[in-house]
Amino acid sequence: AILAAIQFHLTGGVDGPLAGKKVVITAGPTFEPLDPVRGLTNRSSGKQGYAIAQKLAREGADVTLISGPVSLPTPIGVTRIDVETAQEMFDAVHAQLPCDVFVGVAAVADWRAKDIAAEKQKKTADNELSVTFVKNPDILESVSKHLDLRPRLVIGFAAETQKLEDYAHAKLASKGCDAIVANNVSEGVFGSAHNQATLVDLDGFTPIAGMTKADIADFLSAYIQKRIA
Amino acid sequence: AILAAIQFHLTGGVDGPLAGKKVVITAGPTFEPLDPVRGLTNRSSGKQGYAIAQKLAREGADVTLISGPVSLPTPIGVTRIDVETAQEMFDAVHAQLPCDVFVGVAAVADWRAKDIAAEKQKKTADNELSVTFVKNPDILESVSKHLDLRPRLVIGFAAETQKLEDYAHAKLASKGCDAIVANNVSEGVFGSAHNQATLVDLDGFTPIAGMTKADIADFLSAYIQKRIA
Repeated sequence: AILAAIQFHLTGGVDGPLAGKKVVITAGPTFEPLDPVRGLTNRSSGKQGYAIAQKLAREGADVTLISGPVSLPTPIGVTRIDVETAQEMFDAVHAQLPCDVFVGVAAVADWRAKDIAAEKQKKTADNELSVTFVKNPDILESVSKHLDLRPRLVIGFAAETQKLEDYAHAKLASKGCDAIVANNVSEGVFGSAHNQATLVDLDGFTPIAGMTKADIADFLSAYIQKRIA
Repeated sequence: AILAAIQFHLTGGVDGPLAGKKVVITAGPTFEPLDPVRGLTNRSSGKQGYAIAQKLAREGADVTLISGPVSLPTPIGVTRIDVETAQEMFDAVHAQLPCDVFVGVAAVADWRAKDIAAEKQKKTADNELSVTFVKNPDILESVSKHLDLRPRLVIGFAAETQKLEDYAHAKLASKGCDAIVANNVSEGVFGSAHNQATLVDLDGFTPIAGMTKADIADFLSAYIQKRIA
Protein backbone atom coordinates (compact mmCIF):
# COMPACT_ATOMS: atom_id res chain seq x y z
CA ALA A 1 0.00 0.00 0.00
CA ILE A 2 2.89 2.34 0.75
CA LEU A 3 4.54 1.49 -2.57
CA ALA A 4 1.22 2.08 -4.34
CA ALA A 5 0.89 5.43 -2.65
CA ILE A 6 4.41 6.42 -3.72
CA GLN A 7 3.67 5.28 -7.28
CA PHE A 8 0.42 7.26 -7.16
CA HIS A 9 2.35 10.46 -6.53
CA LEU A 10 5.14 9.62 -8.98
CA THR A 11 2.69 8.99 -11.84
CA GLY A 12 0.79 12.20 -11.39
CA GLY A 13 -1.53 11.99 -8.41
CA VAL A 14 -2.48 15.31 -6.85
CA ASP A 15 -0.33 17.32 -9.28
CA GLY A 16 -1.54 15.69 -12.54
CA PRO A 17 -3.24 17.30 -15.53
CA LEU A 18 -6.71 16.77 -14.03
CA ALA A 19 -5.82 18.41 -10.70
CA GLY A 20 -8.73 20.45 -9.39
CA LYS A 21 -11.32 18.60 -11.45
CA LYS A 22 -14.05 16.72 -9.63
CA VAL A 23 -15.07 13.49 -11.36
CA VAL A 24 -17.98 11.26 -10.31
CA ILE A 25 -17.94 7.67 -11.63
CA THR A 26 -20.47 4.88 -11.17
CA ALA A 27 -19.36 1.24 -11.42
CA GLY A 28 -20.54 -2.33 -10.98
CA PRO A 29 -24.05 -3.75 -11.08
CA THR A 30 -27.01 -2.75 -8.98
CA PHE A 31 -28.95 -5.30 -6.92
CA GLU A 32 -32.71 -4.87 -6.84
CA PRO A 33 -34.19 -6.97 -4.01
CA LEU A 34 -37.28 -9.11 -4.53
CA ASP A 35 -37.28 -10.20 -0.88
CA PRO A 36 -34.58 -10.40 1.83
CA VAL A 37 -32.73 -13.12 -0.10
CA ARG A 38 -33.41 -12.81 -3.84
CA GLY A 39 -32.82 -10.00 -6.25
CA LEU A 40 -32.37 -8.91 -9.83
CA THR A 41 -28.83 -8.08 -10.91
CA ASN A 42 -26.56 -8.27 -13.93
CA ARG A 43 -23.13 -9.56 -14.89
CA SER A 44 -21.05 -6.42 -14.40
CA SER A 45 -17.79 -7.06 -12.51
CA GLY A 46 -17.10 -3.36 -11.93
CA LYS A 47 -13.57 -3.69 -13.35
CA GLN A 48 -14.02 -1.11 -16.14
CA GLY A 49 -15.34 1.60 -13.82
CA TYR A 50 -12.66 0.91 -11.23
CA ALA A 51 -9.94 1.08 -13.91
CA ILE A 52 -11.25 4.48 -15.03
CA ALA A 53 -11.44 5.75 -11.43
CA GLN A 54 -7.84 4.64 -10.83
CA LYS A 55 -6.57 6.26 -14.02
CA LEU A 56 -8.31 9.60 -13.44
CA ALA A 57 -7.13 9.74 -9.81
CA ARG A 58 -3.56 9.19 -11.02
CA GLU A 59 -4.05 12.13 -13.39
CA GLY A 60 -4.86 14.29 -10.39
CA ALA A 61 -8.66 14.35 -10.50
CA ASP A 62 -10.73 14.39 -7.30
CA VAL A 63 -12.54 11.10 -7.98
CA THR A 64 -15.67 9.84 -6.22
CA LEU A 65 -16.56 6.27 -7.18
CA ILE A 66 -20.15 5.23 -6.50
CA SER A 67 -20.11 1.46 -6.60
CA GLY A 68 -22.67 -1.32 -6.67
CA PRO A 69 -21.84 -4.65 -4.99
CA VAL A 70 -18.51 -5.89 -6.37
CA SER A 71 -15.44 -7.67 -5.00
CA LEU A 72 -12.75 -5.16 -5.88
CA PRO A 73 -10.33 -3.11 -3.78
CA THR A 74 -10.79 0.67 -3.76
CA PRO A 75 -8.22 2.32 -6.07
CA ILE A 76 -5.60 4.48 -4.35
CA GLY A 77 -6.66 8.09 -3.94
CA VAL A 78 -10.32 7.43 -4.79
CA THR A 79 -13.29 8.18 -2.53
CA ARG A 80 -15.67 5.20 -2.69
CA ILE A 81 -19.37 5.17 -1.80
CA ASP A 82 -21.06 1.75 -1.77
CA VAL A 83 -24.69 1.41 -2.82
CA GLU A 84 -26.96 -1.49 -3.65
CA THR A 85 -30.00 -0.39 -5.66
CA ALA A 86 -30.42 1.92 -8.65
CA GLN A 87 -32.37 4.35 -6.48
CA GLU A 88 -29.52 4.47 -3.94
CA MET A 89 -27.04 5.03 -6.76
CA PHE A 90 -29.22 7.80 -8.18
CA ASP A 91 -29.37 9.53 -4.79
CA ALA A 92 -25.63 9.14 -4.19
CA VAL A 93 -24.79 10.60 -7.62
CA HIS A 94 -27.06 13.60 -7.17
CA ALA A 95 -25.62 14.24 -3.71
CA GLN A 96 -22.19 14.60 -5.40
CA LEU A 97 -23.27 17.35 -7.83
CA PRO A 98 -21.88 19.76 -8.86
CA CYS A 99 -18.90 18.09 -10.52
CA ASP A 100 -16.85 18.69 -13.67
CA VAL A 101 -17.17 15.25 -15.22
CA PHE A 102 -19.65 12.39 -14.77
CA VAL A 103 -18.82 8.93 -16.13
CA GLY A 104 -21.67 6.42 -15.79
CA VAL A 105 -20.09 2.99 -16.15
CA ALA A 106 -22.39 1.09 -13.78
CA ALA A 107 -24.76 -1.45 -15.29
CA VAL A 108 -27.80 -0.01 -13.57
CA ALA A 109 -30.89 -2.22 -13.44
CA ASP A 110 -33.62 -0.64 -15.56
CA TRP A 111 -36.27 -2.31 -13.44
CA ARG A 112 -36.99 -3.04 -9.82
CA ALA A 113 -39.68 -5.19 -8.26
CA LYS A 114 -42.96 -3.32 -7.82
CA ASP A 115 -43.44 -4.91 -4.40
CA ILE A 116 -40.52 -6.02 -2.24
CA ALA A 117 -41.55 -8.76 0.14
CA ALA A 118 -40.58 -8.13 3.76
CA GLU A 119 -40.07 -11.84 4.40
CA LYS A 120 -38.43 -14.42 2.16
CA GLN A 121 -41.03 -15.77 -0.23
CA LYS A 122 -41.67 -19.48 0.18
CA LYS A 123 -41.92 -21.89 -2.69
CA THR A 124 -45.50 -22.80 -3.42
CA ALA A 125 -47.07 -25.69 -5.29
CA ASP A 126 -47.64 -23.43 -8.27
CA ASN A 127 -45.46 -24.08 -11.25
CA GLU A 128 -45.22 -20.45 -12.25
CA LEU A 129 -44.57 -17.14 -10.54
CA SER A 130 -45.22 -13.76 -12.05
CA VAL A 131 -43.30 -10.72 -10.85
CA THR A 132 -44.13 -7.18 -11.87
CA PHE A 133 -41.27 -4.74 -12.28
CA VAL A 134 -41.43 -0.95 -12.44
CA LYS A 135 -38.88 1.39 -13.99
CA ASN A 136 -35.92 2.71 -12.10
CA PRO A 137 -34.90 6.35 -12.46
CA ASP A 138 -32.41 6.94 -15.29
CA ILE A 139 -29.21 8.20 -13.66
CA LEU A 140 -27.35 9.13 -16.85
CA GLU A 141 -30.28 11.07 -18.29
CA SER A 142 -31.00 12.82 -15.00
CA VAL A 143 -27.41 14.07 -14.81
CA SER A 144 -27.22 15.01 -18.51
CA LYS A 145 -30.44 16.98 -18.38
CA HIS A 146 -29.94 18.55 -14.95
CA LEU A 147 -31.20 22.13 -15.19
CA ASP A 148 -28.82 23.70 -12.69
CA LEU A 149 -25.94 21.32 -12.07
CA ARG A 150 -25.16 19.59 -15.37
CA PRO A 151 -21.45 18.65 -15.40
CA ARG A 152 -19.36 20.06 -18.26
CA LEU A 153 -18.82 16.55 -19.57
CA VAL A 154 -21.19 13.59 -19.22
CA ILE A 155 -20.09 10.19 -20.53
CA GLY A 156 -22.19 7.04 -20.53
CA PHE A 157 -21.56 3.38 -21.29
CA ALA A 158 -23.82 1.14 -23.33
CA ALA A 159 -23.60 -2.64 -23.11
CA GLU A 160 -25.18 -4.14 -26.17
CA THR A 161 -25.31 -7.48 -27.90
CA GLN A 162 -26.40 -6.24 -31.33
CA LYS A 163 -26.54 -3.12 -33.52
CA LEU A 164 -23.89 -1.61 -31.26
CA GLU A 165 -23.37 1.72 -32.99
CA ASP A 166 -27.05 2.31 -33.79
CA TYR A 167 -28.07 1.91 -30.17
CA ALA A 168 -25.14 3.96 -28.91
CA HIS A 169 -26.01 6.81 -31.26
CA ALA A 170 -29.66 6.69 -30.23
CA LYS A 171 -28.63 6.63 -26.57
CA LEU A 172 -26.36 9.65 -27.04
CA ALA A 173 -29.30 11.63 -28.38
CA SER A 174 -32.01 10.42 -26.01
CA LYS A 175 -29.94 10.77 -22.83
CA GLY A 176 -28.46 14.12 -23.74
CA CYS A 177 -24.91 13.13 -22.81
CA ASP A 178 -21.69 14.13 -24.57
CA ALA A 179 -20.24 10.72 -25.35
CA ILE A 180 -21.14 7.04 -25.12
CA VAL A 181 -18.67 4.19 -24.88
CA ALA A 182 -20.43 1.30 -26.59
CA ASN A 183 -19.40 -2.14 -25.39
CA ASN A 184 -20.07 -5.28 -27.34
CA VAL A 185 -21.02 -7.76 -24.61
CA SER A 186 -21.82 -10.66 -26.93
CA GLU A 187 -18.31 -12.11 -26.79
CA GLY A 188 -17.71 -13.00 -23.17
CA VAL A 189 -16.55 -9.63 -21.89
CA PHE A 190 -18.05 -9.69 -18.39
CA GLY A 191 -15.48 -10.30 -15.70
CA SER A 192 -12.65 -10.48 -18.21
CA ALA A 193 -9.76 -8.02 -18.43
CA HIS A 194 -10.63 -7.13 -22.02
CA ASN A 195 -13.36 -5.11 -23.66
CA GLN A 196 -14.46 -4.27 -27.17
CA ALA A 197 -15.51 -0.67 -27.37
CA THR A 198 -16.35 2.26 -29.61
CA LEU A 199 -16.63 5.87 -28.47
CA VAL A 200 -19.56 7.73 -29.97
CA ASP A 201 -19.89 11.50 -29.73
CA LEU A 202 -21.19 14.30 -31.93
CA ASP A 203 -18.05 14.02 -34.06
CA GLY A 204 -18.85 10.40 -34.92
CA PHE A 205 -17.45 6.97 -34.03
CA THR A 206 -13.99 6.20 -32.71
CA PRO A 207 -13.38 2.44 -32.55
CA ILE A 208 -11.24 1.22 -29.65
CA ALA A 209 -11.52 -2.47 -30.48
CA GLY A 210 -9.28 -5.09 -28.92
CA MET A 211 -8.07 -2.91 -26.06
CA THR A 212 -7.85 -3.87 -22.39
CA LYS A 213 -9.97 -2.18 -19.74
CA ALA A 214 -6.86 -0.28 -18.63
CA ASP A 215 -6.36 0.87 -22.23
CA ILE A 216 -9.96 2.07 -22.40
CA ALA A 217 -9.37 3.96 -19.15
CA ASP A 218 -6.27 5.58 -20.70
CA PHE A 219 -8.24 6.47 -23.82
CA LEU A 220 -11.04 8.03 -21.77
CA SER A 221 -8.57 9.95 -19.63
CA ALA A 222 -7.01 11.52 -22.74
CA TYR A 223 -10.49 12.23 -24.14
CA ILE A 224 -11.58 13.92 -20.91
CA GLN A 225 -8.41 16.04 -20.76
CA LYS A 226 -9.01 17.15 -24.36
CA ARG A 227 -12.67 17.96 -23.76
CA ILE A 228 -12.37 19.92 -20.51
CA ALA A 229 -8.99 21.60 -21.16
CA ALA B 1 0.45 -21.82 -1.26
CA ILE B 2 3.31 -24.12 -0.29
CA LEU B 3 2.86 -23.24 3.38
CA ALA B 4 -0.87 -23.84 3.06
CA ALA B 5 -0.20 -27.22 1.48
CA ILE B 6 2.16 -28.17 4.33
CA GLN B 7 -0.40 -27.01 6.88
CA PHE B 8 -3.03 -29.03 5.00
CA HIS B 9 -1.05 -32.21 5.58
CA LEU B 10 -0.09 -31.34 9.16
CA THR B 11 -3.69 -30.74 10.20
CA GLY B 12 -5.02 -33.96 8.76
CA GLY B 13 -5.32 -33.82 5.01
CA VAL B 14 -5.21 -37.14 3.24
CA ASP B 15 -4.77 -39.11 6.48
CA GLY B 16 -7.55 -37.48 8.52
CA PRO B 17 -10.62 -39.08 10.11
CA LEU B 18 -12.69 -38.60 6.93
CA ALA B 19 -10.10 -40.24 4.65
CA GLY B 20 -11.76 -42.33 1.98
CA LYS B 21 -15.11 -40.49 2.25
CA LYS B 22 -16.38 -38.66 -0.78
CA VAL B 23 -18.22 -35.44 0.07
CA VAL B 24 -20.09 -33.25 -2.41
CA ILE B 25 -20.81 -29.66 -1.32
CA THR B 26 -22.70 -26.89 -3.12
CA ALA B 27 -21.96 -23.24 -2.33
CA GLY B 28 -22.73 -19.70 -3.39
CA PRO B 29 -25.72 -18.30 -5.25
CA THR B 30 -27.02 -19.36 -8.62
CA PHE B 31 -27.52 -16.83 -11.41
CA GLU B 32 -30.63 -17.29 -13.55
CA PRO B 33 -30.32 -15.21 -16.73
CA LEU B 34 -33.21 -13.11 -18.01
CA ASP B 35 -31.22 -12.00 -21.07
CA PRO B 36 -27.47 -11.76 -21.84
CA VAL B 37 -27.04 -9.01 -19.21
CA ARG B 38 -29.66 -9.35 -16.48
CA GLY B 39 -30.43 -12.16 -14.13
CA LEU B 40 -32.03 -13.27 -10.89
CA THR B 41 -29.66 -14.05 -8.04
CA ASN B 42 -29.41 -13.81 -4.27
CA ARG B 43 -27.10 -12.49 -1.60
CA SER B 44 -25.06 -15.60 -0.84
CA SER B 45 -21.31 -14.91 -0.63
CA GLY B 46 -20.38 -18.60 -0.70
CA LYS B 47 -18.21 -18.22 2.43
CA GLN B 48 -20.10 -20.80 4.52
CA GLY B 49 -19.90 -23.54 1.88
CA TYR B 50 -16.24 -22.82 1.19
CA ALA B 51 -15.44 -22.95 4.93
CA ILE B 52 -17.13 -26.36 5.17
CA ALA B 53 -15.29 -27.65 2.07
CA GLN B 54 -11.97 -26.49 3.53
CA LYS B 55 -12.64 -28.10 6.91
CA LEU B 56 -13.76 -31.46 5.51
CA ALA B 57 -10.78 -31.59 3.11
CA ARG B 58 -8.46 -31.00 6.08
CA GLU B 59 -10.15 -33.91 7.83
CA GLY B 60 -9.16 -36.10 4.90
CA ALA B 61 -12.39 -36.21 2.90
CA ASP B 62 -12.35 -36.29 -0.90
CA VAL B 63 -14.27 -33.01 -1.37
CA THR B 64 -15.93 -31.81 -4.57
CA LEU B 65 -17.22 -28.24 -4.29
CA ILE B 66 -19.86 -27.24 -6.84
CA SER B 67 -19.92 -23.47 -6.77
CA GLY B 68 -22.12 -20.73 -8.15
CA PRO B 69 -20.53 -17.38 -9.12
CA VAL B 70 -18.50 -16.11 -6.13
CA SER B 71 -15.22 -14.28 -5.62
CA LEU B 72 -13.43 -16.77 -3.37
CA PRO B 73 -10.24 -18.79 -3.78
CA THR B 74 -10.58 -22.57 -4.02
CA PRO B 75 -9.69 -24.20 -0.67
CA ILE B 76 -6.53 -26.33 -0.65
CA GLY B 77 -7.17 -29.96 -1.53
CA VAL B 78 -10.70 -29.34 -2.83
CA THR B 79 -11.93 -30.12 -6.36
CA ARG B 80 -14.03 -27.19 -7.55
CA ILE B 81 -16.62 -27.18 -10.33
CA ASP B 82 -18.05 -23.77 -11.32
CA VAL B 83 -21.65 -23.49 -12.45
CA GLU B 84 -24.04 -20.61 -13.01
CA THR B 85 -27.68 -21.75 -13.02
CA ALA B 86 -29.64 -24.06 -10.73
CA GLN B 87 -30.06 -26.53 -13.59
CA GLU B 88 -26.29 -26.61 -14.14
CA MET B 89 -25.75 -27.14 -10.40
CA PHE B 90 -28.34 -29.94 -10.41
CA ASP B 91 -26.59 -31.67 -13.30
CA ALA B 92 -23.13 -31.23 -11.75
CA VAL B 93 -24.30 -32.67 -8.41
CA HIS B 94 -25.93 -35.71 -10.01
CA ALA B 95 -22.82 -36.33 -12.10
CA GLN B 96 -20.88 -36.66 -8.80
CA LEU B 97 -23.07 -39.40 -7.35
CA PRO B 98 -22.48 -41.81 -5.70
CA CYS B 99 -20.90 -40.06 -2.69
CA ASP B 100 -20.93 -40.64 1.07
CA VAL B 101 -22.09 -37.19 2.16
CA PHE B 102 -23.93 -34.39 0.39
CA VAL B 103 -24.01 -30.91 1.96
CA GLY B 104 -26.22 -28.44 0.09
CA VAL B 105 -25.13 -24.98 1.23
CA ALA B 106 -25.78 -23.12 -2.02
CA ALA B 107 -28.61 -20.60 -2.10
CA VAL B 108 -30.20 -22.11 -5.19
CA ALA B 109 -32.72 -19.93 -7.01
CA ASP B 110 -36.13 -21.55 -6.72
CA TRP B 111 -37.21 -19.93 -9.97
CA ARG B 112 -35.81 -19.20 -13.40
CA ALA B 113 -37.23 -17.07 -16.20
CA LYS B 114 -39.70 -18.99 -18.36
CA ASP B 115 -38.23 -17.37 -21.48
CA ILE B 116 -34.62 -16.22 -21.70
CA ALA B 117 -34.22 -13.47 -24.26
CA ALA B 118 -31.41 -14.06 -26.76
CA GLU B 119 -30.70 -10.33 -27.00
CA LYS B 120 -30.57 -7.74 -24.26
CA GLN B 121 -34.08 -6.44 -23.69
CA LYS B 122 -34.44 -2.74 -24.38
CA LYS B 123 -36.26 -0.33 -22.14
CA THR B 124 -39.67 0.49 -23.50
CA ALA B 125 -42.05 3.33 -22.83
CA ASP B 126 -44.13 1.05 -20.63
CA ASN B 127 -43.94 1.73 -16.98
CA GLU B 128 -44.22 -1.89 -15.98
CA LEU B 129 -42.69 -5.17 -17.04
CA SER B 130 -44.04 -8.58 -16.15
CA VAL B 131 -41.74 -11.59 -16.08
CA THR B 132 -42.96 -15.15 -15.66
CA PHE B 133 -40.77 -17.54 -13.73
CA VAL B 134 -40.94 -21.34 -13.65
CA LYS B 135 -39.66 -23.64 -10.93
CA ASN B 136 -36.12 -24.91 -10.86
CA PRO B 137 -35.43 -28.55 -9.96
CA ASP B 138 -34.92 -29.09 -6.21
CA ILE B 139 -31.34 -30.32 -5.82
CA LEU B 140 -31.54 -31.21 -2.12
CA GLU B 141 -34.76 -33.19 -2.51
CA SER B 142 -33.53 -34.94 -5.65
CA VAL B 143 -30.41 -36.15 -3.82
CA SER B 144 -32.28 -37.08 -0.62
CA LYS B 145 -34.87 -39.10 -2.49
CA HIS B 146 -32.57 -40.67 -5.07
CA LEU B 147 -33.72 -44.28 -5.51
CA ASP B 148 -30.33 -45.83 -6.29
CA LEU B 149 -27.61 -43.40 -5.25
CA ARG B 150 -28.79 -41.66 -2.07
CA PRO B 151 -25.72 -40.67 -0.01
CA ARG B 152 -25.51 -42.05 3.54
CA LEU B 153 -25.85 -38.53 4.90
CA VAL B 154 -27.65 -35.60 3.28
CA ILE B 155 -27.49 -32.17 4.94
CA GLY B 156 -29.28 -29.05 3.78
CA PHE B 157 -29.20 -25.38 4.71
CA ALA B 158 -32.22 -23.15 5.17
CA ALA B 159 -31.96 -19.37 5.06
CA GLU B 160 -34.98 -17.88 6.76
CA THR B 161 -36.05 -14.54 8.10
CA GLN B 162 -38.81 -15.80 10.39
CA LYS B 163 -40.12 -18.92 12.15
CA LEU B 164 -36.64 -20.38 11.73
CA GLU B 165 -37.13 -23.70 13.48
CA ASP B 166 -40.63 -24.34 12.15
CA TYR B 167 -39.51 -23.96 8.58
CA ALA B 168 -36.36 -25.98 9.12
CA HIS B 169 -38.34 -28.84 10.64
CA ALA B 170 -40.82 -28.75 7.77
CA LYS B 171 -37.97 -28.70 5.27
CA LEU B 172 -36.30 -31.69 6.94
CA ALA B 173 -39.48 -33.71 6.46
CA SER B 174 -40.44 -32.54 2.99
CA LYS B 175 -36.97 -32.87 1.46
CA GLY B 176 -36.20 -36.20 3.07
CA CYS B 177 -32.75 -35.16 4.23
CA ASP B 178 -30.99 -36.12 7.48
CA ALA B 179 -30.26 -32.68 8.91
CA ILE B 180 -30.91 -29.03 8.20
CA VAL B 181 -28.75 -26.14 9.32
CA ALA B 182 -31.18 -23.26 9.76
CA ASN B 183 -29.69 -19.81 9.30
CA ASN B 184 -31.34 -16.67 10.52
CA VAL B 185 -30.67 -14.22 7.70
CA SER B 186 -32.61 -11.32 9.15
CA GLU B 187 -29.60 -9.87 10.97
CA GLY B 188 -27.12 -8.97 8.27
CA VAL B 189 -25.44 -12.33 7.84
CA PHE B 190 -24.77 -12.28 4.10
CA GLY B 191 -21.15 -11.68 3.24
CA SER B 192 -20.16 -11.45 6.89
CA ALA B 193 -17.85 -13.86 8.69
CA HIS B 194 -20.54 -14.73 11.22
CA ASN B 195 -23.70 -16.78 11.12
CA GLN B 196 -26.54 -17.62 13.46
CA ALA B 197 -27.49 -21.23 13.08
CA THR B 198 -29.41 -24.16 14.53
CA LEU B 199 -28.99 -27.78 13.45
CA VAL B 200 -32.24 -29.67 13.09
CA ASP B 201 -32.37 -33.44 12.77
CA LEU B 202 -34.64 -36.28 13.92
CA ASP B 203 -33.18 -35.95 17.43
CA GLY B 204 -34.34 -32.33 17.66
CA PHE B 205 -32.73 -28.89 17.67
CA THR B 206 -29.10 -28.08 18.45
CA PRO B 207 -28.54 -24.31 18.61
CA ILE B 208 -25.18 -23.08 17.35
CA ALA B 209 -25.91 -19.40 17.83
CA GLY B 210 -23.19 -16.75 17.71
CA MET B 211 -20.60 -18.94 16.04
CA THR B 212 -18.39 -17.96 13.10
CA LYS B 213 -18.70 -19.68 9.72
CA ALA B 214 -15.48 -21.54 10.52
CA ASP B 215 -17.04 -22.68 13.82
CA ILE B 216 -20.13 -23.92 12.01
CA ALA B 217 -17.84 -25.81 9.64
CA ASP B 218 -16.08 -27.40 12.64
CA PHE B 219 -19.44 -28.29 14.19
CA LEU B 220 -20.65 -29.90 10.95
CA SER B 221 -17.38 -31.79 10.54
CA ALA B 222 -17.79 -33.32 14.00
CA TYR B 223 -21.44 -34.08 13.27
CA ILE B 224 -20.56 -35.80 9.98
CA GLN B 225 -17.82 -37.87 11.62
CA LYS B 226 -20.29 -38.99 14.31
CA ARG B 227 -23.01 -39.86 11.80
CA ILE B 228 -20.96 -41.82 9.28
CA ALA B 229 -18.45 -43.41 11.67
